[in-house]
Amino acid sequence: MKKVRVGILGAAGYTGGELIRVLINHPEVNIVFANSESNAGNKVYDVHEGLLGETELEFTSEMPFDKVDVVFFCFGHGKSEAFLKEHEIPASVKIIDLAQDFRIKGSHDYVYGLPEIHREQIAGCQHLANPGCFATCIQLGLLPMAKAGLLTHDISVNAVTGSTGAGQKPAATTHFSWRTDNFSVYKLFTHQHLHEICQSLNELRPSASPRVADTLNEGFGTDGITVDFIPYRGDFSRGIFCTEVITLDAPLPAEKVVEMYKDFYSSAAFTHYSEKPLDLKQVVNTNKALVHAEVFGRKVVVTSIIDNLLKGAVGQAVQNMNLMFGLDERAGLNLKASAF
Amino acid sequence: MKKVRVGILGAAGYTGGELIRVLINHPEVNIVFANSESNAGNKVYDVHEGLLGETELEFTSEMPFDKVDVVFFCFGHGKSEAFLKEHEIPASVKIIDLAQDFRIKGSHDYVYGLPEIHREQIAGCQHLANPGCFATCIQLGLLPMAKAGLLTHDISVNAVTGSTGAGQKPAATTHFSWRTDNFSVYKLFTHQHLHEICQSLNELRPSASPRVADTLNEGFGTDGITVDFIPYRGDFSRGIFCTEVITLDAPLPAEKVVEMYKDFYSSAAFTHYSEKPLDLKQVVNTNKALVHAEVFGRKVVVTSIIDNLLKGAVGQAVQNMNLMFGLDERAGLNLKASAF
Amino acid sequence: MKKVRVGILGAAGYTGGELIRVLINHPEVNIVFANSESNAGNKVYDVHEGLLGETELEFTSEMPFDKVDVVFFCFGHGKSEAFLKEHEIPASVKIIDLAQDFRIKGSHDYVYGLPEIHREQIAGCQHLANPGCFATCIQLGLLPMAKAGLLTHDISVNAVTGSTGAGQKPAATTHFSWRTDNFSVYKLFTHQHLHEICQSLNELRPSASPRVADTLNEGFGTDGITVDFIPYRGDFSRGIFCTEVITLDAPLPAEKVVEMYKDFYSSAAFTHYSEKPLDLKQVVNTNKALVHAEVFGRKVVVTSIIDNLLKGAVGQAVQNMNLMFGLDERAGLNLKASAF
Amino acid sequence: MKKVRVGILGAAGYTGGELIRVLINHPEVNIVFANSESNAGNKVYDVHEGLLGETELEFTSEMPFDKVDVVFFCFGHGKSEAFLKEHEIPASVKIIDLAQDFRIKGSHDYVYGLPEIHREQIAGCQHLANPGCFATCIQLGLLPMAKAGLLTHDISVNAVTGSTGAGQKPAATTHFSWRTDNFSVYKLFTHQHLHEICQSLNELRPSASPRVADTLNEGFGTDGITVDFIPYRGDFSRGIFCTEVITLDAPLPAEKVVEMYKDFYSSAAFTHYSEKPLDLKQVVNTNKALVHAEVFGRKVVVTSIIDNLLKGAVGQAVQNMNLMFGLDERAGLNLKASAF
Repeated sequence: MKKVRVGILGAAGYTGGELIRVLINHPEVNIVFANSESNAGNKVYDVHEGLLGETELEFTSEMPFDKVDVVFFCFGHGKSEAFLKEHEIPASVKIIDLAQDFRIKGSHDYVYGLPEIHREQIAGCQHLANPGCFATCIQLGLLPMAKAGLLTHDISVNAVTGSTGAGQKPAATTHFSWRTDNFSVYKLFTHQHLHEICQSLNELRPSASPRVADTLNEGFGTDGITVDFIPYRGDFSRGIFCTEVITLDAPLPAEKVVEMYKDFYSSAAFTHYSEKPLDLKQVVNTNKALVHAEVFGRKVVVTSIIDNLLKGAVGQAVQNMNLMFGLDERAGLNLKASAF
Repeated sequence: MKKVRVGILGAAGYTGGELIRVLINHPEVNIVFANSESNAGNKVYDVHEGLLGETELEFTSEMPFDKVDVVFFCFGHGKSEAFLKEHEIPASVKIIDLAQDFRIKGSHDYVYGLPEIHREQIAGCQHLANPGCFATCIQLGLLPMAKAGLLTHDISVNAVTGSTGAGQKPAATTHFSWRTDNFSVYKLFTHQHLHEICQSLNELRPSASPRVADTLNEGFGTDGITVDFIPYRGDFSRGIFCTEVITLDAPLPAEKVVEMYKDFYSSAAFTHYSEKPLDLKQVVNTNKALVHAEVFGRKVVVTSIIDNLLKGAVGQAVQNMNLMFGLDERAGLNLKASAF
Repeated sequence: MKKVRVGILGAAGYTGGELIRVLINHPEVNIVFANSESNAGNKVYDVHEGLLGETELEFTSEMPFDKVDVVFFCFGHGKSEAFLKEHEIPASVKIIDLAQDFRIKGSHDYVYGLPEIHREQIAGCQHLANPGCFATCIQLGLLPMAKAGLLTHDISVNAVTGSTGAGQKPAATTHFSWRTDNFSVYKLFTHQHLHEICQSLNELRPSASPRVADTLNEGFGTDGITVDFIPYRGDFSRGIFCTEVITLDAPLPAEKVVEMYKDFYSSAAFTHYSEKPLDLKQVVNTNKALVHAEVFGRKVVVTSIIDNLLKGAVGQAVQNMNLMFGLDERAGLNLKASAF
Repeated sequence: MKKVRVGILGAAGYTGGELIRVLINHPEVNIVFANSESNAGNKVYDVHEGLLGETELEFTSEMPFDKVDVVFFCFGHGKSEAFLKEHEIPASVKIIDLAQDFRIKGSHDYVYGLPEIHREQIAGCQHLANPGCFATCIQLGLLPMAKAGLLTHDISVNAVTGSTGAGQKPAATTHFSWRTDNFSVYKLFTHQHLHEICQSLNELRPSASPRVADTLNEGFGTDGITVDFIPYRGDFSRGIFCTEVITLDAPLPAEKVVEMYKDFYSSAAFTHYSEKPLDLKQVVNTNKALVHAEVFGRKVVVTSIIDNLLKGAVGQAVQNMNLMFGLDERAGLNLKASAF
């Protein structure tokens, strides 16, 4: 079988590097170009940790779109749309955008690439918007409840992310001396991923269930329930650990809740229900998501975890690529957990 | 002035060591004995990091209660009460118990030692129960709202603690290989500190305000609002970072909430309101607590931080000792923040 | 082609877990049993981080040696030899021992499994002693110089290891509260891996070169040059970072030294020369070793790095298994670097 | 007694902040100004972690030298000399320079401020050059041997530093995502602190002992023994852990070596000999240095540890200030070890 020919834009960034790390071992992929103006001519291993001895691939300043089947956009947010205005990409070339530019439905044809709810649309799409890292983790914790119409009160979400979520550019809050042993909160109740979370929750909810208000657009105090999301900065590099507290109208047996989650993810390739409480390193360096739920009276506490660079970005992008090209959904993604 | 003569029981544990580290520099204190059966005869610096060159103090198997003014109980939980059944401590000797044995009111005369609400009782007491670490941090975030009668809905509390909170004994969840870069949840909604938190919140609330239910005793679904507390294990050694989300009956101006907090802590020796968002290392290695609040519609998000071994244990115990002996409340507690 | 049927003894320990993590994705392997008396009947994912959703494999108390082609010994040191005295393993079954029991030549037929120097013997052997982690890293830094007869003065070796090198059992020096942000030295000049290091260096040296003295057996001050090895405990979980300082009889051009290293490793499957200084995370979570050398007058400073659980243990064991069964040396070992 | 009036230049940097953290609790000091052009008017707690609630001190753009007794230069290296060319500081005002500008003897009157060897000169000086962090730690490990004339062969020095040694400005090697769990080497054999180390070793050596060559000026291969110094970047924020391996002409009894160290530091205020092996956190957040030695045949292995920001910078500067003003050498420096 002919391999999928891949082009990568923004290849010198964090997600670019992780994408190369994944794709060089993907059995069905051939990396045709890894574009980075500023690094053109350099070996990718000069920029990206861990690639020495794995590949002699070099960054290029070219973007030969006619020679690829799919192109990954690993730009910063907002740059994908700008890029498309200035460059023409042949209609036959599929696009997977890792930025947030096309995640919200609008006058474009990008499919929101969360395989747990959109597998078929993904398989048939030409253009894909890859979900955000927090958004992926939080949605995986909430979607089964949304679909069951059980989201009827404001939802309390607390999620801590590793430093790679903040990208490659050094900043005060990613300075080692500050971040190590530290813990802090940011974008309290106003994280931009709320948009896509609300979009998915509303998409799945039965019509009788209350609308989830997008507080970023509508503000607080409007009609609809809210997702009260507190993001934290953790002192580790990889992973997102999330708890979602859902208040029910009336108590439910724990077994029923658990079964709902198991059913919802029964055919998911990388998302699994865990019978036991979770710890973050179960998923670090893998494309997996794990979900666990406990019930206390009318409160359901869900825990969900992912690796922000993999299931939260690059791994999910490759999973989506696999679906878009009819490959095994797990191809190239049987990654050994770092575990320690 | 005569120095306060101090005896320490359980001196070889984490809190015992930290207490010695603080007291050897306390200008008004003389450590008379540091008891540890298993280490009797050894230098305290053989057990406790950081004391070599600071003191030649040795652990003793003796407990000469007649030679001290106050004794600190640094036992594990449950052992203080047991110890008192088997040993007689002269009535003239004050007791400061760092365990949880006497924190809940009952047939004993121990004062709950949170100076922010009990300064006068502490100053006059003979026996003191030092608050728990999580309990201190969470209460400092909630007390001003409780007093103002603004706790009228279930409260969402998320708090992450450092590994020293788990004590000295090696365990699977304090093994470095597991804990580093990891994040996990434990005692979901059932942490034992809920008892003392509820006790204080109910003590302060105006009679018209709803009762805070102690879900550990009463279960969920009973009358009263609940404190829904999710404790997390962080991958750092010192500190507690806590967020408390309070739902109001109606929106309040942010300035009003901020002023309430500032007023409440205006005379506190170690608890301060911060105008800016917090990060944990602001308080690490100090006896300080910092509190910050933001308002989103009907939701108030409070952040509170402490060092679990200091304001959450030993530092607060020394602060209480200072009050009990009429010393400057800050004596011996002007600790340089580690900051990095 | 028929898959290699594998049995694992000591499957519940650190190396046992890592071996399972690697082998479940190995295309040519079938795990027949993973033995652990104390965990028999439990899922391996109940013990080993990262395996939930990857495999339903269970620990067994059985050891059906007649159903496997190779058995991995993942016991603690000294237990392999003891086990073999009490159990009979069919002559047709290959053994790969990860402990140190058979690393030193003696009245046994175990081949020392360092592929960089013993590839052919490994390919033809029935019994294999897998090298130690420090030993692997240090040898890879020194072997080219040994072979060239350039080790003529005492060698200064400094190497820092991650906490997983200390195994699974909790101990004071692996307690998170102690180890995090800490750094310390242990087994100064007396680490047990010196035996195998000396054995290899002497095996490779030209007859005219001085003997490397095994100071653990002979003490200091005897005839021969010494390897002065200082092992450090680092505050990370995975990896070994080693510097070896070699004093030459006379200065050599840097290019000559570099070329010697490149030549020596030109056909190595996982060991590469880096033109640039190294950092540990280049190899973490991979089976790679990287080596770099700089020259200052008569001093050559070599840096060598590996992941202690992979190239330092399990990865190298699988690499050896591949050679022993005529498989591609890299089969199952194209592991994505964690990088962050 | 009148307090020492202090001015601080470069007060917004790492050492500036740490100096303020120390001096606000110093019983004999009054901070008159903390200069920082770019932060003038801001509270110091807006920049420096841990100072909220401790002081309302503000950064100033003024430098009223006539109102202070001493001024601390917390500039980057090279800027102290430049500053003095453009500004006049009254002769009566003492200067303590934390940069490296005046550490090497020349046409200036700055005393090299290592109290362990220069206590008297320090007490009588007007201008002081505070030693470097690595330089302090390495010298404390070597000085007793130098004085005894026992440094007769090249010395192998390996030292790992925390990230605060690299200063406040974010860089690739201080990015959390890169540095955490990582380990690397830099300025191999060429670290600039070699100058001051050689200067002190030569100052103390008996005339019969070989000269220590400053390889940075003279290159390798010249006359004299060398200090072969490998600096490492550790993944912690504070502290330097150093091993020095000294080769003797003939074996010495271990007790003799130990006694030499104890004697040398018998009157030191902050440097102590430890009978047991060291770990870094024994000194973190203190002004202490600990030293330990072991003997193997003709090799002596010394371990020395300090906190790079305290004994390696600010703490030692305050210790020197204490000596310069006839105060208790430990005044303001009884800092509680963070220990965890």
